[in-house]
Amino acid sequence: MSKIRVTVWGENVHERTNATVRAIYPAGMHQCIADALNEDPAIAASCATLDQPDHGLPPGRLEETDVLVWWGHAAHGDVADDVVDRVTQAVWSGMGAIFLHSAHFSKPFKRLMGTPCNLTWREAGERERLWLTARNHPIAAGLPDHFELEHEEMYGEPFGIPEPLETVFISWFQGGEVFRSGVTYRRGAGKVFYFRPGHETYPTYHDGNVQRVIRNAVHWAHNAAPRLAEPSAAPNTPVESALEPIVERGPTLHTAGEGGFR
Amino acid sequence: MSKIRVTVWGENVHERTNATVRAIYPAGMHQCIADALNEDPAIAASCATLDQPDHGLPPGRLEETDVLVWWGHAAHGDVADDVVDRVTQAVWSGMGAIFLHSAHFSKPFKRLMGTPCNLTWREAGERERLWLTARNHPIAAGLPDHFELEHEEMYGEPFGIPEPLETVFISWFQGGEVFRSGVTYRRGAGKVFYFRPGHETYPTYHDGNVQRVIRNAVHWAHNAAPRLAEPSAAPNTPVESALEPIVERGPTLHTAGEGGFR
Amino acid sequence: MSKIRVTVWGENVHERTNATVRAIYPAGMHQCIADALNEDPAIAASCATLDQPDHGLPPGRLEETDVLVWWGHAAHGDVADDVVDRVTQAVWSGMGAIFLHSAHFSKPFKRLMGTPCNLTWREAGERERLWLTARNHPIAAGLPDHFELEHEEMYGEPFGIPEPLETVFISWFQGGEVFRSGVTYRRGAGKVFYFRPGHETYPTYHDGNVQRVIRNAVHWAHNAAPRLAEPSAAPNTPVESALEPIVERGPTLHTAGEGGFR
Amino acid sequence: MSKIRVTVWGENVHERTNATVRAIYPAGMHQCIADALNEDPAIAASCATLDQPDHGLPPGRLEETDVLVWWGHAAHGDVADDVVDRVTQAVWSGMGAIFLHSAHFSKPFKRLMGTPCNLTWREAGERERLWLTARNHPIAAGLPDHFELEHEEMYGEPFGIPEPLETVFISWFQGGEVFRSGVTYRRGAGKVFYFRPGHETYPTYHDGNVQRVIRNAVHWAHNAAPRLAEPSAAPNTPVESALEPIVERGPTLHTAGEGGFR
Repeated sequence: MSKIRVTVWGENVHERTNATVRAIYPAGMHQCIADALNEDPAIAASCATLDQPDHGLPPGRLEETDVLVWWGHAAHGDVADDVVDRVTQAVWSGMGAIFLHSAHFSKPFKRLMGTPCNLTWREAGERERLWLTARNHPIAAGLPDHFELEHEEMYGEPFGIPEPLETVFISWFQGGEVFRSGVTYRRGAGKVFYFRPGHETYPTYHDGNVQRVIRNAVHWAHNAAPRLAEPSAAPNTPVESALEPIVERGPTLHTAGEGGFR
Repeated sequence: MSKIRVTVWGENVHERTNATVRAIYPAGMHQCIADALNEDPAIAASCATLDQPDHGLPPGRLEETDVLVWWGHAAHGDVADDVVDRVTQAVWSGMGAIFLHSAHFSKPFKRLMGTPCNLTWREAGERERLWLTARNHPIAAGLPDHFELEHEEMYGEPFGIPEPLETVFISWFQGGEVFRSGVTYRRGAGKVFYFRPGHETYPTYHDGNVQRVIRNAVHWAHNAAPRLAEPSAAPNTPVESALEPIVERGPTLHTAGEGGFR
Repeated sequence: MSKIRVTVWGENVHERTNATVRAIYPAGMHQCIADALNEDPAIAASCATLDQPDHGLPPGRLEETDVLVWWGHAAHGDVADDVVDRVTQAVWSGMGAIFLHSAHFSKPFKRLMGTPCNLTWREAGERERLWLTARNHPIAAGLPDHFELEHEEMYGEPFGIPEPLETVFISWFQGGEVFRSGVTYRRGAGKVFYFRPGHETYPTYHDGNVQRVIRNAVHWAHNAAPRLAEPSAAPNTPVESALEPIVERGPTLHTAGEGGFR
Repeated sequence: MSKIRVTVWGENVHERTNATVRAIYPAGMHQCIADALNEDPAIAASCATLDQPDHGLPPGRLEETDVLVWWGHAAHGDVADDVVDRVTQAVWSGMGAIFLHSAHFSKPFKRLMGTPCNLTWREAGERERLWLTARNHPIAAGLPDHFELEHEEMYGEPFGIPEPLETVFISWFQGGEVFRSGVTYRRGAGKVFYFRPGHETYPTYHDGNVQRVIRNAVHWAHNAAPRLAEPSAAPNTPVESALEPIVERGPTLHTAGEGGFR
């Protein structure tokens, strides 16, 4: 069986500008995540970053990506709209997508959700405890009913997402908040998972449980079916080829063979 | 009790350019819908159209709109992006929204769904039969288990929408297709309903059952709560005012009082 | 407009056998809840208890109940199965139902959910903080983004419920757990709401926010449509009266006019 | 990798009492389905029937079943309640379950849904066309956007099920009805799929597309995680072992070490 091809997209800003972040993730957060994924023999992960041409996602790259992992924070606005279009189209056509932490405000996540994606937050290095809410969900395979991250940024409800298909994790925070930390969606032919942890000043992506969740999520989000060629196509089915024999009746607007309005 | 304020937005293109459509809807489809809504003493409906300044939706208009009804087809691309932003923000802040028929491809609907919203279609004046799939749902109040439209355009599955919160109607078409014709969503604080019927060359919006569905949907989508001021706001909750006493620990990226990244 | 008729069903065991509970709820928890509901001029609430004939729910009572509120704990097993059937049928036919706290393990709730409804628990009088996760949801009308109960029993995830239609509240507990505290479902024509707070040794049902949630939930669960006569009926639609003309073909098992198997 | 162990449960009544059914399924419908599953080298399917001791599902059998397929019609009432309990518990603990056709009224399906599971029906050998509504869903792998069964019993909406997690197929019927023919649920740790086709007087389970759907559904429903030992357990978490240090406060009902009420 061929490997699941993962592209880990990293904004790569804090790693270059902030000594704390660089000390924790000398090769970048994206590389740390990719390395953790590559420990799974069924996964082949590589990286792409904002500063590369086309943000590392030129035409063709996503066609060869089974699952895209996205981390962004300080430079959401710098992501070019055509790249956002490309990501959205790829998800609709069947690519899996995993959005991490501050990617809740990234352009592609907001585009795929259709909601404000707002939350409350606090950077205090407080304790986060993630509780499993969907027992035996494949994204939680091998995990206990709860696990802790001793230092994390707090994200609090209300979290402005659509009602999830499934809520897999809910977080408890030391300062008194809760948050839906792992939620799944389907968008077109693609599966989407949002996973909360991962503030850049803490070693979250070195955590074994966090790495396991992301690995599990890659397997879950991978769609073995061939990618849809045109996920937005709205084909006309002419009267002559209707599945049941019908005769055209009444007035019409469209002339034969004409495409629909977009 | 004050009335529910409805704005019926109509593209108003076919009504001006096509004799068939004008004959059925001499005052425009939007006006026909608004008239049907105004038969309900609890509703006060008015219209807005594409050709008006700001498409009839200048700043302030949506703040005074409890529920927006949207019909568009030939000129989706002509709707200005800032108006789309205004509509989206209003929904997120609590305005109800009802999208009719070909509005499945309108900018605000696609923005709110986050999916391709594709379908298949055929303009043959065939019979459509809508089946109720959620008994006693308020949107179906007073309706039988099914009702028919003798002449309608066909829309067929797969319909590229997110898994609905509730599926209220499913359509049967004479030519052999099915379609999820009435689906509900929540987006931010606002409720969204998509309702399929309403091809411009047929007298669909003169139909009593269709009018009843739209009236019911207005009541369902109306949110009595005050509109949220800033639905996308992501406020910082400082350590000092945490609900549970905590002490800041570990490295930080943000300095005190700083806003988050967007 | 006629009032919403609510029946508050109370197990009424702890109130009679435990001095602590009796001191907090001298007239019973059910009466405290009914009194709080009756403060709303649109609601007419009365009580029924386990120790009454037919547990206070003889044939006819539920037909005159728009919304049933259920609290039970120590005596789930004493509830007669025919009363459980009656409650289930009433919900399916359109009655609203609100299950409180330990009613997660009541027979009617488990029957309506189809899941184990398990959880973890601790009776330590710890702080519970409920966070609103669905802004402007009618069940949360007039409530802040969070509210606290200084002393409550802890219920923790994983909570063995089906994926909710909507998650309205999530609780934070002082001891480190989280819980989906307010969840909605539709079962047949009836709406169901589960609300977590209400351990019998604490004055929870005297709390203004808790009372407001239950009042809001009564309005939300109330279905104005006439009750379905036979929610489980599976009528045969004979070939002769098919909506589209068809001719019977192929072999058959049923003879004409015969009922289906159950 | 070890094979997915499937038990196909058949009522085996019509096959013995009705010559038409016997002619189509000489070894029984269950055997036909099991044979089709065994064409997949990753599946090992065997059968169990109502007339066997314990209906072929004695203690231990379900522990060795990864996915249970259930077909019943005429004898739903003859299924012993303890076997129903066993099936329900197994699903909650992680076993997959696929319910076919008239199993919509089987005891375990109704128990797992919590709804009336009603529908309308007609036995006229009419054409059914199943439309895919969730593109690239694993249950639809390798299938076209629609497929037909030339002779089938009609099942019509409203179908009394809970709002599905995902709607995968919707059927069109020649006589004018529609039906949600493929719907998914999660119940405890187990995945559930209902699939409509399969009236006993037609050769439906010999159809290649139908066989493919059931094979796909077996893969989808299979949960690789170890079965939960006690899916309904509600463990007490004592104060002393709370994850965050807390001190017991306020009055209590339970004494230390005591189990909760059920």
